[in-house]
Amino acid sequence: MHAVELIERKRNGGEIPAAELREFIAAYARDEVPDYQAAALLMAVWFRGLSASETFALTEAMVASGETVDLAAQLGRRVVDKHSTGGVGDKTTIAVGPVVAACGAPFGKMSGRGLGHTGGTLDKLESIPGFRVELSTEELVGQVREIGIAVAGQSADLVPADRKLYALRDVTATIDEVSLIAASIMSKKIAGGASALVLDVKVGEGAFMRTQEDARRLAEAMRGLGEEAGMDVVCLLTDMDQPLGQTVGNALEVREAYDTVAGGGPADFRELVVAAATQLLALSDLELDEDGARKRVTASLGDGSALAAYERWIRAQGGDPDPALLPRAAVVRRLPAPATGFVRGARAREVAAVAMALGAGRERKEDPIDHAVGVVCRAKHGDHVERGEPLAEIHARDEAAAESAAAALLSAYEIGDEPDPRPLVLDVIR
Amino acid sequence: MHAVELIERKRNGGEIPAAELREFIAAYARDEVPDYQAAALLMAVWFRGLSASETFALTEAMVASGETVDLAAQLGRRVVDKHSTGGVGDKTTIAVGPVVAACGAPFGKMSGRGLGHTGGTLDKLESIPGFRVELSTEELVGQVREIGIAVAGQSADLVPADRKLYALRDVTATIDEVSLIAASIMSKKIAGGASALVLDVKVGEGAFMRTQEDARRLAEAMRGLGEEAGMDVVCLLTDMDQPLGQTVGNALEVREAYDTVAGGGPADFRELVVAAATQLLALSDLELDEDGARKRVTASLGDGSALAAYERWIRAQGGDPDPALLPRAAVVRRLPAPATGFVRGARAREVAAVAMALGAGRERKEDPIDHAVGVVCRAKHGDHVERGEPLAEIHARDEAAAESAAAALLSAYEIGDEPDPRPLVLDVIR
Repeated sequence: MHAVELIERKRNGGEIPAAELREFIAAYARDEVPDYQAAALLMAVWFRGLSASETFALTEAMVASGETVDLAAQLGRRVVDKHSTGGVGDKTTIAVGPVVAACGAPFGKMSGRGLGHTGGTLDKLESIPGFRVELSTEELVGQVREIGIAVAGQSADLVPADRKLYALRDVTATIDEVSLIAASIMSKKIAGGASALVLDVKVGEGAFMRTQEDARRLAEAMRGLGEEAGMDVVCLLTDMDQPLGQTVGNALEVREAYDTVAGGGPADFRELVVAAATQLLALSDLELDEDGARKRVTASLGDGSALAAYERWIRAQGGDPDPALLPRAAVVRRLPAPATGFVRGARAREVAAVAMALGAGRERKEDPIDHAVGVVCRAKHGDHVERGEPLAEIHARDEAAAESAAAALLSAYEIGDEPDPRPLVLDVIR
Repeated sequence: MHAVELIERKRNGGEIPAAELREFIAAYARDEVPDYQAAALLMAVWFRGLSASETFALTEAMVASGETVDLAAQLGRRVVDKHSTGGVGDKTTIAVGPVVAACGAPFGKMSGRGLGHTGGTLDKLESIPGFRVELSTEELVGQVREIGIAVAGQSADLVPADRKLYALRDVTATIDEVSLIAASIMSKKIAGGASALVLDVKVGEGAFMRTQEDARRLAEAMRGLGEEAGMDVVCLLTDMDQPLGQTVGNALEVREAYDTVAGGGPADFRELVVAAATQLLALSDLELDEDGARKRVTASLGDGSALAAYERWIRAQGGDPDPALLPRAAVVRRLPAPATGFVRGARAREVAAVAMALGAGRERKEDPIDHAVGVVCRAKHGDHVERGEPLAEIHARDEAAAESAAAALLSAYEIGDEPDPRPLVLDVIR
């Protein structure tokens, strides 16, 4: 493997032999290939893409760079996992996990922290007083065996090459390339040992994938990688033009997930939770078809069993599930509708920027997060509002922050004459 | 200046504002922008190119990164310089310098070492016993004032950003991009303080630029940069499908340059020396038109004055100009023509690879060079040979090296039925 020749080959649109690409990535993980050569290759890949076999070779090399976990073998059961490509207000795992567990399928998930407008699932969970996200693999397995559910931080020993490469992509403008995204996600899932996977591929202006075409390409790439690794993968293509549910902000999102497992919650978020949990159950070892799975999921939301699973889970990881204990922002400002009509938006990217400015997210890994702040979008796309009715709420640290957020949030909304309905789940790719 | 946004803008085909690009390069030269971000930008530039104003901003930033020399002011005269984009068997400076000096124009040049099939001009000159290439700027100016000519290694304080960036391009497969090549060459020439410049842009399979179209783009880019910096630039487009002259190898090339300033030498090399020296004189302060310049150049080759200037120059830098003292290889193997016909080739790249394998060049900066070894192409493109007549010579360290070189060199030649003539100087761009 000659690094410069390998870069040049990709740059010129050629195919890198699988063995050479695996060697490059392995050498990079061992610090034997310098960052600047990896950066040049990443940019060449941004322009040329990777073929299916190159993408699989990259994925394999990242899996092989660290430890792997065989959850299924350790639990003696088929294990289902879910993953989202990332959107605004995405608290799905926090609600889907307890639902799946309540329905009888084991849910053991390793999750990440977030860079961006809000934290990742781990950051959101950390807004729960006492909740502990650092579990050893043994603790994770033990907890899943005992109560059916655990969500923990990803072990540092899992896919170190992906971690290193992702950090490099982040600072070299090479994040948004389908094959790199697919390999990054799937390497973590394969190393994490799930038997089957439901991927929530976000589409729209608040997602990496702006068009259904791009999202479908990413979904197909990930499904292909899963198949090569012997993992069943179902992809949901879901709308991310507006935030998911009403809340964007860590504690606010936990509260919304709580409301949803308790049988309430906003319609769109509930719809996604049901859709994702249904696919997960259908992929599990419970021998349910989709209809049966959906019935069981819906029942768990109505009979209190999903809520009970949520409470067991939070307590098992040291937290107090009482939503009244979640941190609250000092200032809550209502945003009234400036006109009567049908809401379009709020545009996800702009809402995300508002949440970020309020302190809900981080730009750098070491930045602190304010768990209490964020945005609540009371009116969503298609809703009818009268002028002066509440459109949204801003949860801010102080009046000044609320004031500047208000103007920005208002401009994220559009109010029109027609309802212009659109579905949340755009497609299911099996 | 935000590095990731700057990279992303170029990646997406946008224009980087001049001030931001200058800041990026300045920060890179100060080690404040890491190699991996520079590498990602370079690869994005490889795909997108740089606009004229971006290329000039890059050039300016590289000039500003170090010291500059104002040779013209220090000598109180207009100073002409020449530069070649690099080819196989290119010893032009060693002959052109003395010719120009003999004709009365000052020739003070800072030159580089080579990476590749043979050394650069400095390496070639170092095959002369005693020759010293390390001169301070004061020594260089003093020697030009005294005897009209000096050739020295480029000061480490000149264009450090270019040196750093070039080293990075070399290991990230981003050497061969027109705007980067143009900025690299012109930053050195602008910092070196020449008033006018003759650029020998090589075209063909042994050059960076494989087609006349590419070579013309590079020539225009460099001329544009020169103009912006107030420097007159004339470009020669010259053939590099076969080696220049007969010799490829350090001492062999010095001997050929010696023969040429003494009035002999191979026809093609002599033609290039006359063409380049003519343009240099026409750009100098001697107030000659091209015809007058050519006459004076030709005269200097016939009346011994170019040779005398060569000898003065070599002695001034501590060397002995007697060609009999140049190192000789232990083994000289004749390569007879395998058939009767007209020679096509030898293909420059393959000859270069043979010279490299014999030890004439270096792959890494720290590699040693064997000054004595190399190749002599007795028959050039268009020459008629009889089967068994000498086609070429191999100058090797030992029989084994000569043996393996012979097969490779023979395969670089083709012998056909037609002479298929082609010019050496393809165009002059004024």
